[in-house]
Amino acid sequence: MLPPAFLEKLRAAFGERVTTVEAARLHHGRDESAHPPAPPDAVVYATSTTEVVQVVTLCHQYHVPLIPFGVGTSVEGHVLAVHGGIVLDLSCMNRILAVNVDDLDVTVEAGVTRKQLNARLHDSGLFFPIDPGADATLGGMAATRASGTNAVRYGTMRENVLGLTVVLADGRIIHTGGRARKSAAGYDLTRLLVGSEGTLCIITEVTVRLHPQPEAVSAAICMFPTVVQAVRTVISTIQMGVPVARCELLDALTIKAVNRHSKLNLREMPMLLCEFHGSHSGVAEQAKTVQEIATENGGLDFDWASKQEERSRLWQARHDAYLACLQLKPGSRAVATDVCVPVSRLADCIAETNADIAKTSMPIPLFGHVGDGNFHLVILVDPASKADLDEAAALNHRLVMRALAMGGTSTGEHGIGIGKLEFLEAEHGEAVSVMRAIKQTLDPGNILNPGKVLRL
Amino acid sequence: MLPPAFLEKLRAAFGERVTTVEAARLHHGRDESAHPPAPPDAVVYATSTTEVVQVVTLCHQYHVPLIPFGVGTSVEGHVLAVHGGIVLDLSCMNRILAVNVDDLDVTVEAGVTRKQLNARLHDSGLFFPIDPGADATLGGMAATRASGTNAVRYGTMRENVLGLTVVLADGRIIHTGGRARKSAAGYDLTRLLVGSEGTLCIITEVTVRLHPQPEAVSAAICMFPTVVQAVRTVISTIQMGVPVARCELLDALTIKAVNRHSKLNLREMPMLLCEFHGSHSGVAEQAKTVQEIATENGGLDFDWASKQEERSRLWQARHDAYLACLQLKPGSRAVATDVCVPVSRLADCIAETNADIAKTSMPIPLFGHVGDGNFHLVILVDPASKADLDEAAALNHRLVMRALAMGGTSTGEHGIGIGKLEFLEAEHGEAVSVMRAIKQTLDPGNILNPGKVLRL
Repeated sequence: MLPPAFLEKLRAAFGERVTTVEAARLHHGRDESAHPPAPPDAVVYATSTTEVVQVVTLCHQYHVPLIPFGVGTSVEGHVLAVHGGIVLDLSCMNRILAVNVDDLDVTVEAGVTRKQLNARLHDSGLFFPIDPGADATLGGMAATRASGTNAVRYGTMRENVLGLTVVLADGRIIHTGGRARKSAAGYDLTRLLVGSEGTLCIITEVTVRLHPQPEAVSAAICMFPTVVQAVRTVISTIQMGVPVARCELLDALTIKAVNRHSKLNLREMPMLLCEFHGSHSGVAEQAKTVQEIATENGGLDFDWASKQEERSRLWQARHDAYLACLQLKPGSRAVATDVCVPVSRLADCIAETNADIAKTSMPIPLFGHVGDGNFHLVILVDPASKADLDEAAALNHRLVMRALAMGGTSTGEHGIGIGKLEFLEAEHGEAVSVMRAIKQTLDPGNILNPGKVLRL
Repeated sequence: MLPPAFLEKLRAAFGERVTTVEAARLHHGRDESAHPPAPPDAVVYATSTTEVVQVVTLCHQYHVPLIPFGVGTSVEGHVLAVHGGIVLDLSCMNRILAVNVDDLDVTVEAGVTRKQLNARLHDSGLFFPIDPGADATLGGMAATRASGTNAVRYGTMRENVLGLTVVLADGRIIHTGGRARKSAAGYDLTRLLVGSEGTLCIITEVTVRLHPQPEAVSAAICMFPTVVQAVRTVISTIQMGVPVARCELLDALTIKAVNRHSKLNLREMPMLLCEFHGSHSGVAEQAKTVQEIATENGGLDFDWASKQEERSRLWQARHDAYLACLQLKPGSRAVATDVCVPVSRLADCIAETNADIAKTSMPIPLFGHVGDGNFHLVILVDPASKADLDEAAALNHRLVMRALAMGGTSTGEHGIGIGKLEFLEAEHGEAVSVMRAIKQTLDPGNILNPGKVLRL
C-alpha cells in the first residue's frame, strides 16, 4: 500500500502518467522468466531525467520502493515488485541524443532499444553490437550488464558503456565516465553502476561505443560427435587469433528440436556456429582456418557462406532454437538459467550437466556462447507443477555450484535479480560485504529495487 | 613520525624487511615525475598477501598512512608519502601463480612486471599487450588503470583485468571478479578497484587476460603537412574497421628532436606510426588500406615493413622520442602530462595546445596514442627554476581545461595522484561526492594512500 500523500503528490506531478490500473500493474510486475509475477502498487511513466528526479525524491521522502523498468525482458525477476512500491517506466525516454560518427559513440536516453538504435545507425557505417536476443533498452542492458552472441568479439556492456547519467537514491543527478575513449581520472563509477540492476541508481542516459559495420560477414557451421571436440575447436580458434565475431554451441537435443520444428535435416549431434567479420578476403581466410581446425577435431558437415540468404540458412537452427525447444514439451514455460566457466572447463561442465540432466524428468536443451564459456539451460517446466519447479530449482542449484567449483560464475549474462540471490555469497564470499557497504552508502533507505542482487 | 609501538611491532614481524634507512626511504619517496620527493618514515617489504594483511592491520590499528609501491614508475606523485607513514614495497611478490593457456589468462602476484610476464609467456603463443612504456608491475598497472600504445586494439587495464585479490583497509582479504570471461553476478568491484591508485585497497594478486601472439606484424609510417590530416587518416582508418594495433602521432618538434638525436632524416612535420597484427595477408591488406587513406589525406613518404628489423627502423623515432626530447633542453627534467579527448576534437585540441605552447619559454614536444584521442606533453623544465615549474603548471592547467571543454578527460592514462587532484571536480562534478562516499566507506580512517585521487 502506497502512502496516500505520496500517491497524491505523484498524481499532482504526473497526472495520467501515474496509474494503479491492474492491467498496467500486471504488465510491469513480470519479466520473461518463470518467476511468479509481483505487480507494483503503481506505475509511473517518466519522460526526462528531471522527472526521474521528481519520482526518486518523492520515493526517498516517503520510503517507497522504486523499480526502474525498460521493456521487461530480463529473466531473473529483476523488475518484480517483491516489496511493493512503484515501477518507473522509462520506455518513453527513447530519444537518441547524439550520434558521433567520427568518435564511434552515441548517447541515448535509457528507453531506447537496441533495434531502434541500430535502425538509426543503418546509414552511418556503424552499429551497436551487443545483442542479448530480446530487443532490450539500452538502460536495461546497462543495468544488467547484458551481453549476448557477439560478446566474444565486441565485449559486453561492461566494455561498451563509456558514460552514464544517473539519478541517485536521494535525487541527485551525476554523470559518470565521459566520451573520451579511455580515462584514468578517479574511480570507475560507470563500471560500478553497469550491472547494478537498479539497486544503486536509476540510469537515465547511456553513452556507448559503436563499431564499424564489417565490410564482409561470413558464417560457418560444423557438427561434432562430442561437445569436447567442439570446444577444442573453439579454444584452438581463439588461440590462433581468429577474431571470431560469434561462436555458438547447440547441443544434440536442441538440434533434434530444431530438426523437428523447422524441418531441417541436421545430424543430431553438437553443432558449432561461427560468424566472421572483416574484409572479404579476411572472412574467407577466417572460415578456412576454422574449417581446418574443426576437421582436425573430428568436425563433420562443415558448411560456410558469405551471402546474406545463405548465412540465414546456416543460422536458422540457432534462431529457431528457443521456440523449437519450447515445443519439446507443449504447454511448458522455460526456466532459463546461464553460467559461465573458463573455457578450458566448458566441456567438463557441459558433460557433467548433461549427465545431471539425464536424471531429470524433463527435456532440457543446452546452448550458449561457447567462445566466452557461457551456456544456457532451457528447463522446460509445467508452470503449475510444484514438482517441476522444485526439480528445476534443484538442477539450477547443482549447475551453479558446478560452475563455481570450476572457477566460473553463477551467471554470465542474465544477472542476479532474485533468481540467483542465494549464490552471490558462494561466488564472491567476503567481497559481498563490500557490495553491501556500497549499497548502504548509496541507498541507505534501500528504496532502489529492494530485494535484488543483495540480501541486506 | 611513526608511533614507536607501531614500529616495534612491525620490526618484530618483519625483521630486516622493515627499514628506516634514508636511502631506502628516498628511493621509495619519488616516482618518475617532476613532483618533489616525499619520503615515507619507513619502508616494509612484504612477500605474501598474509604479510600485507599484517601490515595493513597494524596501520589500521595505529592510524598510520600506508602507500603501496611496485617499481615507482608512475608520474603523478602516486607513491609520494605526502602525509608520512610507510611505503609497502610489493616488488618481492613477483611469482607468476598460474598460466592458463587454454583460457588465455594468467594470475600473478602484484609485483610481477609486464616484461617478466611476457618473458614467461614467450613460448606459449600468448602475450600480455598492455604497454605503458615503463616496465611497471601488474599491481601498479591495475592500481593506476594503465594503458599505452596498443590500447586502441587491446584495451587498457580496465578491459584486461579479470579479477583481483586485495586487502582492505581493515585487513580483510577479498577476491573480486574471477576467471570467467564475463559475469553478471553482482557489483563490478574489480573495475571499481582498478584505477583506485592504492586509496581503496592494496592489490596483491591480479588475473589478466592474455592475447594470441599475432602470426604477423607490420608497421607503417607516414608524414603529414598538418596534424588535421594525420587525425583524419586515423578516424577514417578506424571507421573502415581496420583493427590497427598501435597508432601513434609525433609532432614536428618531436621529429626535429629525433632527427638531431638519432641522426635520422625525416621531414620535420607530424608523423603517424601504425602497427598491424594479424595473418600475413591481413597485415599487408591493413597497411595497404591505411596507405590509401593516408594518401587521400595528403600523407607523404609512406613506408611500411613487416620484417622485424625493418619495423624497428620505422619505430626508431617513437622509441627514441623521450630521450631525444630531453636533449632539446640539456639538464632539464620532464613534466609529463596527458589528456584524452574524443578523437573528433583531437586535431582542434592539438592545434590550440600548439598555439599555447608557442607562447611559452620552453620546448614542449607533443606525442601520443592518437587512435584513442590520448596525447602527452613533455614539458621540459629546469627543476630548480620556480618560474619554469609555474609556467608548466599554468600550461598544464590550460591543457586540461581545454580537454574537458571538448568532452575529454584530465588524464587518459597517467592517473590523478597528487598532480591532477585539482581537476577531478571540474571533470566529474557531483560524481566526486560518490567517489568520496565510497572512499569513506572502505577506508574510514583514510590510511590508504591519503592525499591521492580525492580531496576528502
